[in-house]
Amino acid sequence: MLKYQKIALEMARHITENLQQKDKLPVIETLISHYKVSKSTIIKALKVLEDKGIIYMVRGSGIFVRGEGRKGYFNLLGVNELHGDARDNRYDLLEIMEIERISALPEVTNALRLEKTAKVYSVKYVYYLDKQVTCLEQVFLSQKIISNLDEEIAPKPIWEYIKDVLGIKMGFPDIYVNVDKLNAEEASFFGLNAEDPMLCKEIIYHLVNGQPVCYSRAVYHYKQARFFLKINSSN
Amino acid sequence: MLKYQKIALEMARHITENLQQKDKLPVIETLISHYKVSKSTIIKALKVLEDKGIIYMVRGSGIFVRGEGRKGYFNLLGVNELHGDARDNRYDLLEIMEIERISALPEVTNALRLEKTAKVYSVKYVYYLDKQVTCLEQVFLSQKIISNLDEEIAPKPIWEYIKDVLGIKMGFPDIYVNVDKLNAEEASFFGLNAEDPMLCKEIIYHLVNGQPVCYSRAVYHYKQARFFLKINSSN
Repeated sequence: MLKYQKIALEMARHITENLQQKDKLPVIETLISHYKVSKSTIIKALKVLEDKGIIYMVRGSGIFVRGEGRKGYFNLLGVNELHGDARDNRYDLLEIMEIERISALPEVTNALRLEKTAKVYSVKYVYYLDKQVTCLEQVFLSQKIISNLDEEIAPKPIWEYIKDVLGIKMGFPDIYVNVDKLNAEEASFFGLNAEDPMLCKEIIYHLVNGQPVCYSRAVYHYKQARFFLKINSSN
Repeated sequence: MLKYQKIALEMARHITENLQQKDKLPVIETLISHYKVSKSTIIKALKVLEDKGIIYMVRGSGIFVRGEGRKGYFNLLGVNELHGDARDNRYDLLEIMEIERISALPEVTNALRLEKTAKVYSVKYVYYLDKQVTCLEQVFLSQKIISNLDEEIAPKPIWEYIKDVLGIKMGFPDIYVNVDKLNAEEASFFGLNAEDPMLCKEIIYHLVNGQPVCYSRAVYHYKQARFFLKINSSN
């Protein structure tokens, strides 16, 4: 982690724990002397916080706290280290249901830019909240990042697994959201009826060189499919 | 528009029209001499393109085109000038159904941080695609930005109206997404059945000083509720 990223993380924690929406941050000079870093490091750190929707800067007026998202909504960009507390899914238990090595279907070879005959690992996860199923996720991992996935795979969200267990640095994700009706199998997991609404969130994770390596397709219980997104439009 | 923003827009157009996923951009020195601007302007412009998910940069290796999102999916951040072609909604016709000045309900005073007794303008829009209703939107405008809204309001998306007609510079939006079942009234607009799925996208638009001034609640036909989001995780 680079110095400005550490400072950004520290500042993000401080803001989350101690400050509220519209609170004003100290001026840059004060931040410089508090964190004992250069002006350019502080400015880079502030840019990170701005990009993450944690602060906003008003020219000539100061730096302000943007405030938390709406209660009960989760960060759509739950792949994001600075929002370690605003998770991808609301869940209190995660189980791995199935691990297989399979021939990839066209949507998977497409997403991962693999040959048509490629094999991939498929991992099925079930996320629970209060003993109810809140999300069903199927993850496809390219053999380019993992040659032998076994039953020992830790039951943690796939991006944590890739980052912490495989030690791979992730580049950018592409996210797709769509809405449909549950099929009978999904409905039985959720304790809902077939044809009830669902939200499907797909994420294609890339390495920093742009190579896609992991494709996740998650179906959410519609009552828990509540996401927020704080974007910075200052560009 | 600042110089680096103009360059970013020019580069974005060039990429969209002429380049494909994984294509490599010229090195920075070539961009500098092509656009006849300083290195810091080019770097700022590239940062904008990176933040918008148009390019990705690989240290020591170059700048690459990230490629379009999946066909049939629209940019979830359709409030974004650089993605003028990737609109908020897919529609070919937009109508204003109703304009009223009303007492704001609690969810509206909350979103716009108004007093409980505040009045707001409500504008109801219908978006059509191929003569079918694809989206129903209700927009609430704070009287802080508009004192007298009349029937002359142009039938264009509200963020375009605020920017182009009112000439107000927008700050950051907060976006909320959730899924639910259609009620009977909504279903009749869409030609669907009550209880069919829908996606609801709420946007709270802020001025650059952080003041929320416009709250939009849009309900999408579930078959057209397909969004993509390209984020840059390099921070």
